[in-house]
Amino acid sequence: MGLKTAIMAHKPARVYEVAFWDPPKSGKDRSKGIVRTGTWASCPGFIDARYPFTTLLHQGLIERVFIADLNKNGVQIQRPWTIAGFTSDEKANPEYPVTVQLEHVDGTSSETIQARYLFGGEGARSFIREQLKIGIKHIDPISHVWGVMDGVVKTDFPDIKMKCTIHSAHGSIMVIPRENNMVRLYIQIASSTDPDFNPRKTATEEDVQASAKRILQPYSIEWERVEWYSVYPIGQGLADRYTLDHRVFLGGDACHTHSPKAGQGMNTAFLDAQNLAWKIHAVESGFAKRSLLETYEPERRDVAETLLAFDNKYAKLFSTRPPAASEVEAAGNNAGAEQTEEENAFIKTFKEACEFTSGYGVAYKPNALNWSPSHPAAQSPLVHPQGTKLRTGRILKNADVTRVVDANVVHLEQEIPLNGSFRLFVFAGKPSTNAQALRDLAANMVKKNSFYSSYARPDADRVSHHERHNPHSMFYTICTIFAEKRSSIEISRDLPPLLARYREHVYADDRWDRLFPDASAAAHAKMGLDQEKGGVVVVRPDGYVGIVVALEEGSGTVDALNAYFGSFCTKKLGEITAQLA
Amino acid sequence: MGLKTAIMAHKPARVYEVAFWDPPKSGKDRSKGIVRTGTWASCPGFIDARYPFTTLLHQGLIERVFIADLNKNGVQIQRPWTIAGFTSDEKANPEYPVTVQLEHVDGTSSETIQARYLFGGEGARSFIREQLKIGIKHIDPISHVWGVMDGVVKTDFPDIKMKCTIHSAHGSIMVIPRENNMVRLYIQIASSTDPDFNPRKTATEEDVQASAKRILQPYSIEWERVEWYSVYPIGQGLADRYTLDHRVFLGGDACHTHSPKAGQGMNTAFLDAQNLAWKIHAVESGFAKRSLLETYEPERRDVAETLLAFDNKYAKLFSTRPPAASEVEAAGNNAGAEQTEEENAFIKTFKEACEFTSGYGVAYKPNALNWSPSHPAAQSPLVHPQGTKLRTGRILKNADVTRVVDANVVHLEQEIPLNGSFRLFVFAGKPSTNAQALRDLAANMVKKNSFYSSYARPDADRVSHHERHNPHSMFYTICTIFAEKRSSIEISRDLPPLLARYREHVYADDRWDRLFPDASAAAHAKMGLDQEKGGVVVVRPDGYVGIVVALEEGSGTVDALNAYFGSFCTKKLGEITAQLA
Repeated sequence: MGLKTAIMAHKPARVYEVAFWDPPKSGKDRSKGIVRTGTWASCPGFIDARYPFTTLLHQGLIERVFIADLNKNGVQIQRPWTIAGFTSDEKANPEYPVTVQLEHVDGTSSETIQARYLFGGEGARSFIREQLKIGIKHIDPISHVWGVMDGVVKTDFPDIKMKCTIHSAHGSIMVIPRENNMVRLYIQIASSTDPDFNPRKTATEEDVQASAKRILQPYSIEWERVEWYSVYPIGQGLADRYTLDHRVFLGGDACHTHSPKAGQGMNTAFLDAQNLAWKIHAVESGFAKRSLLETYEPERRDVAETLLAFDNKYAKLFSTRPPAASEVEAAGNNAGAEQTEEENAFIKTFKEACEFTSGYGVAYKPNALNWSPSHPAAQSPLVHPQGTKLRTGRILKNADVTRVVDANVVHLEQEIPLNGSFRLFVFAGKPSTNAQALRDLAANMVKKNSFYSSYARPDADRVSHHERHNPHSMFYTICTIFAEKRSSIEISRDLPPLLARYREHVYADDRWDRLFPDASAAAHAKMGLDQEKGGVVVVRPDGYVGIVVALEEGSGTVDALNAYFGSFCTKKLGEITAQLA
Repeated sequence: MGLKTAIMAHKPARVYEVAFWDPPKSGKDRSKGIVRTGTWASCPGFIDARYPFTTLLHQGLIERVFIADLNKNGVQIQRPWTIAGFTSDEKANPEYPVTVQLEHVDGTSSETIQARYLFGGEGARSFIREQLKIGIKHIDPISHVWGVMDGVVKTDFPDIKMKCTIHSAHGSIMVIPRENNMVRLYIQIASSTDPDFNPRKTATEEDVQASAKRILQPYSIEWERVEWYSVYPIGQGLADRYTLDHRVFLGGDACHTHSPKAGQGMNTAFLDAQNLAWKIHAVESGFAKRSLLETYEPERRDVAETLLAFDNKYAKLFSTRPPAASEVEAAGNNAGAEQTEEENAFIKTFKEACEFTSGYGVAYKPNALNWSPSHPAAQSPLVHPQGTKLRTGRILKNADVTRVVDANVVHLEQEIPLNGSFRLFVFAGKPSTNAQALRDLAANMVKKNSFYSSYARPDADRVSHHERHNPHSMFYTICTIFAEKRSSIEISRDLPPLLARYREHVYADDRWDRLFPDASAAAHAKMGLDQEKGGVVVVRPDGYVGIVVALEEGSGTVDALNAYFGSFCTKKLGEITAQLA
């Protein structure tokens, strides 16, 4: 989305490792104090993460970055308004079926608007969810009362700049470093398993500080400043539905609540919104059938279910036993190695946890967007060629490549912005081997009724030659990656004009990669594509792999892409003759 | 200086490679058109550069970043004012010896101020230099008239996003990519070697565009927009002096002019200013003797001399013959290898050129700041221990290390900001081996009359515990780097309190380095320091290595540091007994 620079400009804390502290296991001070029992990486080597750390920054600052970007694109956020009521009736008003009553929170003004959609991201006590009478399933019946305190402290606790999980005879605490020398402490104040549990139980700032002091013994801690403090009860909950009519949608905490420990609340909410946003764009701009919106709930609800199950497992794992240092090391150092049967439950959970919290573990199940053997496009023998290591419904793997026009080393997976376009990564192997296949690809893409020409820009002949991403269609951007040294690639010679038009998206797969140190074309290798023959990878606008198709001479590659896009786009794709054949 | 993020936010062009275009050598079109004869890296692998590319951005945008940073620190830049006259008389006014008459350029106001210093960075036609009657030596008697044009073009020339040197039967041109799809073209309009040379020769925009069109044949080029255009005569010149009285100084183009081809004008000017600035700070804050200012001219004039010689060589290299592709490859791939006798002149010049333009080639000669065998500190046998690969007067080598308190992977050479402090990098080897040596280092540093305690902060007991860089002294910051895994380091156990106080500057040398793939402590290895015994590296406030001292038990290490700092600081350092021994 191009917002990283603005977010990192706030100098967020970066968590590379998590430390575990527990009561000492032996010695005369057995029941006294705490000792570090291990640390582990936020993003161990076996996850091929572009940024192998967790970034911690005040949610308000992150929101400001989004709001500034919206402003730049002509959208003003109006706050603080609230929703007093809404109705949705597609029959009465097919174009703007949602009627929403808005009220300014100070009561001075109100407004009724007609909308195409309504998104309820108003948190765990969502008014919209209540009005829709959507129930919440409590997966883990245990709920907790948490105290959260942001502040600046003076302490001799050595890991105050690390993320820590601390267990002691006096209770448990989580330490989260923050920007500007701040530290966030999470303290569990009450649990529904307590004999006298009261979900309204509260605690003062002083109570929580006193509790933290006891837990951190023998280390001292004093607060210089408390920035923010709150106590709130929270249970694990999952909404039964995310939408009833595909006009009024829910997302974020309105759909899923869980413990704050893994820092997944805001992140999951962002991905809910992102998942829905590009689909609404695809439908409203005439590219995708309205039924595409039906993929929102199953994709995101499944992620929330996985999150809750993980949250549960994660909590149990640490309430029962801390990891031994050797286990942590075994799991963390297992970079790139295949999973073995011998792995114990701890290492397995550890790996899942790391994959999940890093975002690399999101896995959307098969549907029209995410190819599987039951997809309409599966008839083609070219689909999902043998050897591919890409998994549909998963994020595209990271790869460094060299851009041909300016020799810049770039992050391939970030080269196409999140702008609603599907991303076609043409791994073109060797130019000499694939000259004809590339010509055939281009020739079939420009044929009438192809996925590509069916959604051509009406103004294609007036588009500026500086347009990098969408010269021909607002719905597709093409990258071509050759398994060749940059200096040997000549765009005008090696690519047919259609692909050559995307001249700033032509790359040389000639960078060294730590996971494929011996590969001469590491990006091809890590995708599992033959470095002679290549293959075409379709990535959804939100970055998840949709389908992988072999790059072959003839019309087969485009036929398979027509079948893929034809399963959810508005027009009938493919030539009559091709369909008869 | 912490300005990278602000500069990169402007999305400057990045030059990773330079392309050479020449008339074809063979074929029937021998005298027609141009062909690419080779490309080379801006920063080839043999330079261990942190950012292996050249960043290209409008000088005005870079200035704005500096001005914004000055504002943030309470300094307002007043423009446009000019200097109408000045005098300097240390006898009449020892504290503010410089009298300057300022005039607003619109003539509405004028002002006379008393200043401690005056810095003339007003370009090649410097009024201050003229007033001081400082001459300019023309090293290369040839001068040129250059046309420079910034604009947005439409072209099928494939390397328009690259830096290119183009020779053709119709003349020569340099192509420099810029931010926002712009391209800068440098065209040599006239040379003093021309029979009818006129240094006032000019050319219109249209002339230059017509010339560019001829040179780029068979490729086409059209201008969509011209942002800026200028014609100016320039020769190679070097001022005889940079100062007469060490109160009024010159820098930048006022001291050195040369062809714009290597993009070294602004960069050399910045380093002039930076070199002088920290020295003035050191003198005015009472740390260094006034004679420190006498190192400005020799250090920076020597760099300018090297720059002019390089500029000359560079120009000749390309006017006589283009490099063969094989030569470029041989030079570029020679990563980390030792220089061999067989290297030809081309490769040698190429290496020098790359080192120079990357900034890694700046080499200050021996003086009080830059240790050499004739330095007063050379009496100590601990100075410049055998094996060290650091060269005094050169920039500190880059190294990735892990910060112990938060496990962040950081760039060691950037960990101490440019704030006037000398940077003491204590490469501490193995904690077990060096426990006593570290204790002795700390014990001798706190002794009366040591380099460290002599410049203690008067408010040291009231400094916030959040102060990372200067808890004890405004003139020193200490980093300790252990040749050990992060998880094995315990700051309170492994460091004496004085060094432990710099807890955010304690690092584990446990990161892999491409140049030392087999080293278990790559930072120690690349500095050439024993990974058991370590060593102390003193880096000047501007990032250049001052001295390297062995880390040994006893007082020897601090004695050597006292001798080093004592050669230019204001106080007499070292204990009487130590000096007698």
